Amino acid sequence: MKGWFTPVAVAALFLGLLVGTLAVGLLLPATPLAPVSQVQAFQKPYPMPHQYWAKTDEFYVFASGGQQGGLYVYGVPSMKYLSEIPVFVPDQAWGWTPEDPEIRKMMTNPWTGQLVTRGDTHHPALSKTKGVYDGRWAFINDKMQGRVARVDLATFRTSQIYWVPNISGGIHGHHIAPDSRLIVVNIEHEQSPDPVIQRHIGIQVDPFKGPYVAGINGIRVADDGKMSNAWQVWGPWQYDMARIGWGKSDGWIITTSYNTERATSAVPMFAREQDYLYFWNIASIEKALADKKVVTTAQAPDMPVISWKDVEVYMTPIPLNPHGLDISPTGKYILTSGKATTLIAAVDFEKVLQAIKDRKFVGEEFNIKILDQNAVRSATMDLGMGPTHIEFDDQGYAYVGFFVDSDIKKVPLGEPYTQLHKREPWKVADVLPAHFSVGHLVVPGGDTAQPYGKYVISMNKLTKDTFLPHGPLRTENHELFNIRETPAKLVDQMALGPETHYSQVIPVSLITPRSQTAYKEARALASEKPRVEYDYNAKEVRVFMTVVRSFFTPEVFNVPQGWKVKVRMVSQETALDMTHGFALDGYNVVASLDPGEVREVEWTAEKPGVNWFYCIWFCSELHMEMRGRMIVVPSQEWAPQMETKLGS
Amino acid sequence: MKGWFTPVAVAALFLGLLVGTLAVGLLLPATPLAPVSQVQAFQKPYPMPHQYWAKTDEFYVFASGGQQGGLYVYGVPSMKYLSEIPVFVPDQAWGWTPEDPEIRKMMTNPWTGQLVTRGDTHHPALSKTKGVYDGRWAFINDKMQGRVARVDLATFRTSQIYWVPNISGGIHGHHIAPDSRLIVVNIEHEQSPDPVIQRHIGIQVDPFKGPYVAGINGIRVADDGKMSNAWQVWGPWQYDMARIGWGKSDGWIITTSYNTERATSAVPMFAREQDYLYFWNIASIEKALADKKVVTTAQAPDMPVISWKDVEVYMTPIPLNPHGLDISPTGKYILTSGKATTLIAAVDFEKVLQAIKDRKFVGEEFNIKILDQNAVRSATMDLGMGPTHIEFDDQGYAYVGFFVDSDIKKVPLGEPYTQLHKREPWKVADVLPAHFSVGHLVVPGGDTAQPYGKYVISMNKLTKDTFLPHGPLRTENHELFNIRETPAKLVDQMALGPETHYSQVIPVSLITPRSQTAYKEARALASEKPRVEYDYNAKEVRVFMTVVRSFFTPEVFNVPQGWKVKVRMVSQETALDMTHGFALDGYNVVASLDPGEVREVEWTAEKPGVNWFYCIWFCSELHMEMRGRMIVVPSQEWAPQMETKLGS
Repeated sequence: MKGWFTPVAVAALFLGLLVGTLAVGLLLPATPLAPVSQVQAFQKPYPMPHQYWAKTDEFYVFASGGQQGGLYVYGVPSMKYLSEIPVFVPDQAWGWTPEDPEIRKMMTNPWTGQLVTRGDTHHPALSKTKGVYDGRWAFINDKMQGRVARVDLATFRTSQIYWVPNISGGIHGHHIAPDSRLIVVNIEHEQSPDPVIQRHIGIQVDPFKGPYVAGINGIRVADDGKMSNAWQVWGPWQYDMARIGWGKSDGWIITTSYNTERATSAVPMFAREQDYLYFWNIASIEKALADKKVVTTAQAPDMPVISWKDVEVYMTPIPLNPHGLDISPTGKYILTSGKATTLIAAVDFEKVLQAIKDRKFVGEEFNIKILDQNAVRSATMDLGMGPTHIEFDDQGYAYVGFFVDSDIKKVPLGEPYTQLHKREPWKVADVLPAHFSVGHLVVPGGDTAQPYGKYVISMNKLTKDTFLPHGPLRTENHELFNIRETPAKLVDQMALGPETHYSQVIPVSLITPRSQTAYKEARALASEKPRVEYDYNAKEVRVFMTVVRSFFTPEVFNVPQGWKVKVRMVSQETALDMTHGFALDGYNVVASLDPGEVREVEWTAEKPGVNWFYCIWFCSELHMEMRGRMIVVPSQEWAPQMETKLGS
Repeated sequence: MKGWFTPVAVAALFLGLLVGTLAVGLLLPATPLAPVSQVQAFQKPYPMPHQYWAKTDEFYVFASGGQQGGLYVYGVPSMKYLSEIPVFVPDQAWGWTPEDPEIRKMMTNPWTGQLVTRGDTHHPALSKTKGVYDGRWAFINDKMQGRVARVDLATFRTSQIYWVPNISGGIHGHHIAPDSRLIVVNIEHEQSPDPVIQRHIGIQVDPFKGPYVAGINGIRVADDGKMSNAWQVWGPWQYDMARIGWGKSDGWIITTSYNTERATSAVPMFAREQDYLYFWNIASIEKALADKKVVTTAQAPDMPVISWKDVEVYMTPIPLNPHGLDISPTGKYILTSGKATTLIAAVDFEKVLQAIKDRKFVGEEFNIKILDQNAVRSATMDLGMGPTHIEFDDQGYAYVGFFVDSDIKKVPLGEPYTQLHKREPWKVADVLPAHFSVGHLVVPGGDTAQPYGKYVISMNKLTKDTFLPHGPLRTENHELFNIRETPAKLVDQMALGPETHYSQVIPVSLITPRSQTAYKEARALASEKPRVEYDYNAKEVRVFMTVVRSFFTPEVFNVPQGWKVKVRMVSQETALDMTHGFALDGYNVVASLDPGEVREVEWTAEKPGVNWFYCIWFCSELHMEMRGRMIVVPSQEWAPQMETKLGS
């Protein structure tokens, strides 16, 4: 067995796959189709039966949108786009607009009162119970503004945006505990924080030159999913990826730093040949809290700030600028890739605990003990250029993505997985060629205690000529591989909008049965009558409106110019898929209203005369006639008898 | 032949298809796959050869986004999403943000100076030469704000937004002349326009009660695609769909009105059993211009406003609330559907011209002569509930979508098409069941003088249970049918974001060869050095920045707090697909920068201390290190020696 995996054999394997791929490419379009028996599992019937996609898809994919500011959702193996979930950035298409005061409040910076309309989502984290997805929520972080949001998976709608205090943005890693009670987010972009924090950690920062400081942020998650401040641990370095351990690594937060140089620009950030992987003991953070070794800032009096010196933290060297950081299903192996190298370190967390016990330290830096890498590593794999992220399947394999090599390598893990795969661990078992540069990759359940396996999706950062050209700005490419076969087969490809980072993949059985078809909010307001109220003190008109095919009621209301208008809409629809919209000609006002939903929109009545509003979702054959008027009267011409009165 | 198409036979045909469809649905998932020979044309090979989609797709689809505010683009027959083109609404995902002053200017209302961030795109109109698509531009209208934009198909980027003057929004129909020199847009939402217009047309509008007035708007298109005011014809009615004729109908604008009742709410808009189809002679409009039968308003001194009484216009009755309005390839037949009926009128434009000549009028209303419907119609087809839109193929067939029946009926046209299809015209030849309610539909080239045929895409408004559930808000469904077979076969389905109205489909050969991979703007600035300029009078810092993997230069600059910051970025990239982004932590600033592109972003330096900016497009293994700093100094602490100086 071992002889088969000599470096030469592996190289030959690589080359063979490469040549094979090229050959297939050259044969196109003369390539004959595979016989039916072979294609059956991954091709669609023709003509197509109704509900084919709804009945044959096995998984939902929740992909972070990056600069899209929310999440993309699609089905597997169909690779059919299903939906987008707007989170941090207004998205008129999906009715996620700050003219709705509830949405505006979520998007408003709680300390400055400024409406924030920009964001950059990175790492979705599906809620878990006992280390396994439970289908309740998707949490997602915003790198740019430093926020975490919760999406309700029954409605596919954002229900909370949590703002990390004491920072100027620039977070990166984001992970959830195996029981969903703690979320950790890392500060990637080094800061010059509140002087209270600088004094507490004993580092005074020069805002012009640095070196700056950073830390990790704990968020408590209540039973209903509500997030609140837990703690903030500041230290000398920035942190990149984050994982909260489970199984063998339960009770520990694990993070990387690519800039242990504490540099402020790119080249010096690569000065050291090794950076660090950190192990933070959660109990020690809770103890520092209990011991009141904390300060708070004026901005966040309820956020305890802790110094890294007051908690139990260790570190071990990892090759040049690590990025990928992923934990195997039992919680035993921590695989970390040096993204500017060809190396992936497999750290064994049982060895980490033993090394701590045995004090196998090779030094310290900034008071943090450095664990001997020889004592904690199971392997250091030299697998290819630009390793990025790692995922795990249910058969004891790790999958490592390579940005430069543009492929994914499949590698058998060590014990206890050898009984599953029966191979020599840490040697390449398959190479999956990607088109092209692999950023993140994902296996269904691949960051949980029980991966579902079966597929791997490569999230490629450069698609180049995979799809039809469409101007200089190209889309992303998600590639689905069937990993039940070796070599793995490319099942399908899909372009997706900018720019997914990580995705999580969850079985249909955990989402579909819980999915709501209508909201229940409108029921409580069933007996309320539409009406219009005029508040002369507040200079405000409040319209209580019902919406149903094909009528807004009231369909007309009069308003003095310059007054604020607040419309509360109640959808009287109960039928599946009967969404209405509200758009006001010439104003920055668009909202959508799902069946049974209650929503508000607000604006100022600026333009005298007839202002039409209309349903912006095609809802019936009477859709275009579903419109109404706001009549704005110049304030000097307004008289109380112009008030709109509705019959009973 | 004729006997075969008795109503009973047709009904049997419907029933047979319906039962067939249900049977297929019930058999799932036991349905066996078709043999390879049958599936070859529309199934993908497995494993997939590289560039399969780029090499096998035949058409690009440009689909209006509705409340998405721009266009969606995908490939046919792959049904693979390719891209989105933001137009009227900011779209951070695609870097279309008003912090770029050029984009902000396009989105700013030219009369109020207000930034407009809401829109509702309806009808893409691809540029044509001699009545056939030429692949230069896509024009698209915004119903909500009353605008038309031009998208450059070499870059897939919006290059102009034209604002229709004298209106408060609410346009609908949008069409382009066969030589692309004229665009017409209809005013759907009735207005209370400038008193100058009311006096000129002799109708004084009560802003509270109406009846209001509306009209059609002409836009001239220059050789370089630039749009400018042509004329505006106001009249007593609103107008819905618009077509500029070609071939037999060359020189005429054709429009519908669903509200000839001049009502202000839905039910009364259905009071008349027939509304009107209008024929406007373009030469007569140009003559009114030449004769100076025009007025202008203070808002738009360069927009000639004409009364409908001063132009040559005729109308003919069409069943209850027409919506669909489409012209057959030779320009002869105008098919118009009464959307609240089961009827589609086939008007023969040659008969229209003859009837005008023979003065076959049955009366007039508001000075417009009413053409005898018996004199101008070739057929009145009774085909199903809720007819919407109509498209045409290359074999002499019309395809009519039905919202309520949820299907598309294929109907042979009359002469000269009978030599092509050799069937009795105006009788159903095929029924394509849709999932579910058909809004628009499209055949490649289906609104041109030479349709490409082969496929029809049904753009369904309600998808219900076609895909996996995903909360109350469901996506749209585009269904691709192969119409080279009878009965037509469902090739594929795709969910798409909200909410496409019309699409246009154009061959790959007209787009792919022209598609740019990089911008050339940066070349002219190749010798410019990065620098930072401080303007103490304007309180403005101007940063001239170069951007290349993996550096912003300058990577740091100092700014006094409260000053305006303008950054002009020059991409030094030339490689395909090497887009960078610019995001500023904690600010509402995100932009993207394609290879060779030059862009600006502006903001005010609000937050003292370190403000990181970073590349928001994953560009290389050094991507995360591609970041820089704006150091904001409280203005009282600022000293000129803090100015950032760059080496030569």
